[in-house]
Amino acid sequence: VVVGERAVREDGRRRREAIVMKAVELASLDGVQGLTIGHLAAELEMSKSGVYAHFGSKQELQLATIARASVLFTDRVIEPAAAQPPGLGRVIAFCDSFLRYVRRGDLPGGCFFASATLELGGRPGPVKQAVAEHQRSTWTLLYSYLAEAVGTGDLAESEDLQHLMLELQGILLAANSRYVVEDDDGVLTLAASVVRRRLGVPDGWTPRRVTPD
Amino acid sequence: VVVGERAVREDGRRRREAIVMKAVELASLDGVQGLTIGHLAAELEMSKSGVYAHFGSKQELQLATIARASVLFTDRVIEPAAAQPPGLGRVIAFCDSFLRYVRRGDLPGGCFFASATLELGGRPGPVKQAVAEHQRSTWTLLYSYLAEAVGTGDLAESEDLQHLMLELQGILLAANSRYVVEDDDGVLTLAASVVRRRLGVPDGWTPRRVTPD
Repeated sequence: VVVGERAVREDGRRRREAIVMKAVELASLDGVQGLTIGHLAAELEMSKSGVYAHFGSKQELQLATIARASVLFTDRVIEPAAAQPPGLGRVIAFCDSFLRYVRRGDLPGGCFFASATLELGGRPGPVKQAVAEHQRSTWTLLYSYLAEAVGTGDLAESEDLQHLMLELQGILLAANSRYVVEDDDGVLTLAASVVRRRLGVPDGWTPRRVTPD
Repeated sequence: VVVGERAVREDGRRRREAIVMKAVELASLDGVQGLTIGHLAAELEMSKSGVYAHFGSKQELQLATIARASVLFTDRVIEPAAAQPPGLGRVIAFCDSFLRYVRRGDLPGGCFFASATLELGGRPGPVKQAVAEHQRSTWTLLYSYLAEAVGTGDLAESEDLQHLMLELQGILLAANSRYVVEDDDGVLTLAASVVRRRLGVPDGWTPRRVTPD
């Protein structure tokens, strides 16, 4: 009986995970506000009440979607950077991973959080807060990578890290925006060069591969 | 009778303009895809058929909204730059005007086109094309300002203008994104400093005022 209960729970968990992953895809096309239980149910060929049972409200679904998109971002962008030793290699790994995450096209609308931030900017509330929280923790992490690179001597002590942060964020956001609108991945290659020139490393230089891709 | 007809036409033009301006505001909150004739009619306390008479279809309304947002962008961002003589002053006027346009908060969701680009990225069609066309012409214009600044000797011939373009676009987009999510205009001031440092002009330097604000 205990094994049976565990199997049922495991099955429910897997179903919920499949629903949330589909919700991330749909939200990347229609926006977090455009996500509805009805549309999601139709895409999954489930009943609305079946989807509703997993979330209970549209806001609950939106928050679960943002949490799942955050796990995807961590997996694609942060983990490859965290696997590098401190220094410029880690900063460049972060930027390269971001550009690769956009190019892979897991999400048809480019970076989930770049879109969600602008979509929800004018809509204060728990859903905007969840997106803001992801953004804060991501950019705080990149800032800590820059500070580490000053510590290792890869970046000069005189470097203004708030300036450099805004520049790197900007290169990544501009690349994402132009890739989405121009459907040409040349801008992602250009962005990788711009990052390297800004950080004073040779074009084409890559951090040592420390994890399998 | 002729005067009467002209007055009727003028009245219709003004009504259409008021509807489209409200549509720009609503689209900045709910997205271009989230814009509906029903919602717009409710906001304007008009009948749906009254709004429908001016546009005929949702796509027509979306295209008119994008065209109106483009006029607003030209007015706020491009005209102050075009009023400057060629050189770095014009480039900086463009960036400053963009940051001022975001700060003014005419649109609660920040720059209309930054949002619309990411919203419509995964949705090919005439509406995405209209946004892409605005983006192309805006960035082509900024590129021509950079080329002029090489011509006047304000920028070195060795400057890679494709790199510099992506960096400036990036600083503006990152500032817009952080302003929208953090509700703190300090990032707009920071961005103005970063633009100046990147272009090699002193912090706080401003182009000579050539038009009344």
